[in-house]
Amino acid sequence: MSHISALRRSFFFALIVCFPAVAPGQDKETPAKPPNIVIIFADDLGYGDLGCYGHPTIATPHLDRMAAEGLRFTQFYVAECVCTPSRAALLTGRLPIRNGMCSDTRRVLFTDSTGGLPSDEVTIAEVLKKQKYATACIGKWHLGHRSQFLPTRQGFDRYYGIPYSNDMRPTVLMRDEHSIEDPADQTTLTARYTAEATSFIRQHRGEPFFLYLAHNFPHVPLFASEKFQGKSRRGLYGDVVEELDWSVGQVLDTLRETKLDDNTLVFFTSDNGPWLIKNIHGGSAGPLREGKGSTWEGGMREPAIAWWPGKIPAGRVTTELASSLDLLATIAKLADAELPSDRTIDSQDLSDLLLGKGKSPRDTMFYYRGRRLMAVRHGPWKAHFLTQAGYGQKEPEAHDPPLLYNLEHDPGEHYNVAPDHSEVVARLKELATQHIAGVNAPPSQLELR
Amino acid sequence: MSHISALRRSFFFALIVCFPAVAPGQDKETPAKPPNIVIIFADDLGYGDLGCYGHPTIATPHLDRMAAEGLRFTQFYVAECVCTPSRAALLTGRLPIRNGMCSDTRRVLFTDSTGGLPSDEVTIAEVLKKQKYATACIGKWHLGHRSQFLPTRQGFDRYYGIPYSNDMRPTVLMRDEHSIEDPADQTTLTARYTAEATSFIRQHRGEPFFLYLAHNFPHVPLFASEKFQGKSRRGLYGDVVEELDWSVGQVLDTLRETKLDDNTLVFFTSDNGPWLIKNIHGGSAGPLREGKGSTWEGGMREPAIAWWPGKIPAGRVTTELASSLDLLATIAKLADAELPSDRTIDSQDLSDLLLGKGKSPRDTMFYYRGRRLMAVRHGPWKAHFLTQAGYGQKEPEAHDPPLLYNLEHDPGEHYNVAPDHSEVVARLKELATQHIAGVNAPPSQLELR
Repeated sequence: MSHISALRRSFFFALIVCFPAVAPGQDKETPAKPPNIVIIFADDLGYGDLGCYGHPTIATPHLDRMAAEGLRFTQFYVAECVCTPSRAALLTGRLPIRNGMCSDTRRVLFTDSTGGLPSDEVTIAEVLKKQKYATACIGKWHLGHRSQFLPTRQGFDRYYGIPYSNDMRPTVLMRDEHSIEDPADQTTLTARYTAEATSFIRQHRGEPFFLYLAHNFPHVPLFASEKFQGKSRRGLYGDVVEELDWSVGQVLDTLRETKLDDNTLVFFTSDNGPWLIKNIHGGSAGPLREGKGSTWEGGMREPAIAWWPGKIPAGRVTTELASSLDLLATIAKLADAELPSDRTIDSQDLSDLLLGKGKSPRDTMFYYRGRRLMAVRHGPWKAHFLTQAGYGQKEPEAHDPPLLYNLEHDPGEHYNVAPDHSEVVARLKELATQHIAGVNAPPSQLELR
Repeated sequence: MSHISALRRSFFFALIVCFPAVAPGQDKETPAKPPNIVIIFADDLGYGDLGCYGHPTIATPHLDRMAAEGLRFTQFYVAECVCTPSRAALLTGRLPIRNGMCSDTRRVLFTDSTGGLPSDEVTIAEVLKKQKYATACIGKWHLGHRSQFLPTRQGFDRYYGIPYSNDMRPTVLMRDEHSIEDPADQTTLTARYTAEATSFIRQHRGEPFFLYLAHNFPHVPLFASEKFQGKSRRGLYGDVVEELDWSVGQVLDTLRETKLDDNTLVFFTSDNGPWLIKNIHGGSAGPLREGKGSTWEGGMREPAIAWWPGKIPAGRVTTELASSLDLLATIAKLADAELPSDRTIDSQDLSDLLLGKGKSPRDTMFYYRGRRLMAVRHGPWKAHFLTQAGYGQKEPEAHDPPLLYNLEHDPGEHYNVAPDHSEVVARLKELATQHIAGVNAPPSQLELR
C-alpha cells in the first residue's frame, strides 16, 4: 500500500466518522450517478427578450435566478436561423447541411412535407439511451411529422406535443405517435407541457433521465393561459414569455423538491432569433442586428443559461464562444457516453467551461442560411460573404471583399472594418473554403413532398 | 399611557436587553442621522453598456452587484440628450428650458462661452448645505467655467475636476477655483477622481455628506489607466467602462469599510445616451433607438441603479417611470430638507419607490432638444411631434399627427400606432400644449460668448 493510498484511506475513514449516515451503495467503489439532462428550448425568443439580457419590460425572475445560480452565455449560437435546421443541429451535433435538414427554397418542414430527420442520424436521446437514460420529448418537434420521423423513432421513450410550428394546420397535439387533440387548445399549451415535464421528472427520479422540453412559444400565434393574460407590461408577447419563465421556475422547483438539483444539468436556450416582421408579436434581438431568418447576429445568437447547482459555479457570465451544436458532445462527456465515430460531428465538449475548469474549445462558427454558407466567425471576427434580411429581401447580396466585423467591439455589426484588416479577411476566406471542401451535402429532406 | 405605548416600551426594553451595547445618543428620542448622498454620473454611457443591461462583452461586476443589492431602473430618463442641459436639470430638478441652460444653436457650453447656471438657481448641494452637509463636486461640471459659475459658487465646499467635456481645449484640471494641471493627464483621471472621492468619504465619515462624482468618461477621447488598457473584450471603450465599474466598486467598498453603507444612498446614472457617430468609440443604446443628441429613447433613457443596503430592498428591477429631475425632491425628502418654493420645480419624490413602500409619482416625461419640445410620454405612450437624429440631420422632421409608440410594448420605437389610438394622441397633444403654456423661458445662457 502506497503512502498516498494510506492517506486516502484515513481520509475516507475520517469522512465516515464525520458522516456516519452514508446511504447504502454510496461508498467509494460506486461510480458517480450519471447526471440527468434537461434541455429547455424556446421558439423564436430573441437575444434581448429576458430581464437578464436587458429587456426593459418583460419580467423573467425565474430565468434571471437561474442565471444568477448558474452560467449565462453572451456569445452562444444556434446553427441555423430558422426552426427545423436549428433543431436538427441541436439534437445531432451536426450542421444541417450534413444531414439534409436545410433548404434554400423551403426553409423548414411544412405540413405537406414528406421528409424528416434521417433515421440513421444519431440524436442526443439515442446517445443517452445507450446509457440507460429514460428519455422524453415534450413540445415542438419539427423534424418530420410522418410516423417514421417522430421522436419515438429517434431515441425518445415518450412524446407529447405539437409536431411542428403552432401556426401550421392542423395544429394537432400528439401523444407518442397518435393525435389526441385537434385542434390543440393553445391557451393551455405551456401549462400542459410544464405539467408533463414535472410529472416525467418525478416519475424518473430514481434513474437517469433526459428531458427535451421544446416549447412552441413565443412563436406566433401567441397564446397565454388565463393566469398570465394581460399581466405583462410588454403586452401579449410579454405574457407569453413570462409564462415560459414561470414554466422554467416550475421545472427547477421540481428538481429542488425531488433533490435532483445537484445531479441535473439544465440548459435553456432558443432555436433562432425574434421574428421581427411579426411586429409587436415578435421579440427583440436587443443590441444585435436583424432577427429570425437572417445570418446577422440577431438571427443566430441566443440567450443561453446553464444550471447545475454545486457543479456549475454560480453567478458567472461567459463571453466564450459556444453553440447549440456543442450540447451533444458536452452531454456525452458528462454522461460518459460515446459519440458516433462514423461521421463528421460539429459538436465540441463544453464541460470544462460549464464546470468552471477551463475555456470553450470552440473558436469558429459557420453561419448557414439554408444550403448557403453566408458568414464565418473566428475569434472576435466575422466575415459576411453574403447577407440577406430575415424577410423581405428576395436574393442575398454578395460581398467581395466580405464585410468584416469585430463582434466583441461591435456586437451590433455597425462598422465594417474589412479595409483595415485584409489579413483577417484572407484567413476567414480560407476557413470558409476549407470548410466547404469538407462538406458532403446529401439532398434536402425539406424539399420532399 | 396607552396599551400600545406600553407594548412599545416593553419592545424597546427587550431590544436593550438583547443589545445592551447601544451607542450613546442612539435611543428612540434621537432623530435618525441624515443619510449621506452619493451621485455617480457617467458621461455618454448608453442604456446597453452595462452587463446588467445586457451588454455582451463589457464586464461590469461591481455595477451588476450594486444592482443585485439595490434597485435597477429600466425606464429612467434624463431631462435632455446632451451634457450641459442634462446636468443642469439633475442638480436643480428643473427643466433646462426654465433656467436658460439649453439652446438650439449651441447645445452645450463651449470654452468660449461666457454663460453658466444662474447663481439664483438652487442645486442639490445648496439644499443639503442648509442641512449642514459637507459637499463635494468631483469630475465634470459643464455648467459654466468662469469663476462665478463654478461648483464652489453653487453649494459645493470643494471641487476637483475638468470643468467641461474632456474633448474641449484647454483640458485643464482644477481644484476649487484654480487650474492645477494643464493639460490634464487623462489616463489617470478616473483613478484620481476615485481617490479623491474615497478620501472625501473617509474625511467626512462623522458628518452627513453629499458627493457628486461626475466622471468625464466614456465621453471621447477615451483614456484608461494602465491597469485597464487592453483588458476588455470590447476594446478601449470597454476598458474605459470597466475602469468606471471598478471606480464604483471602490466607492461602495469604502462605504462598507467605513460602515456608512447602511446610511448612504448611492445613485448611479449617465447624462445622456451613447455618442453613436463616434463609431467604435461610442457606446450602445441596447434595444433602444438612436443615441446622444436625439429625443428617440436611446438619447434620453439611461441605466440607473439605486443602492442603500438595509433601506432599499435588494435585487429589485423596476419598470416605474423616473427621471434625473427627481433626484432633488427625493434627496430633499430623505434629508428632511426644504425645496425652493418660489419657482416651478419639475422634480418628484421617488423615496417611496426607492424604499419599497410605493410606486413612482411620475407619469409624464417631456423630451426637449434644445428649446424645442420634441415629444411627450404619458404612461406607456410617447408622441413625437418632431424627430431628429442625434447627428447628421440638419432640421427636425415635423409629424402631424404625431408618431405614437407604446414604449412598454415596443421599447425600440419601431411600430407607430397613432392611426389606432387617436384619443391617446389627442391627450398627449393637450399635455404638450398645457406644458408649453406654463413655461416662461428666460434667454439662453448657452448662446452667450
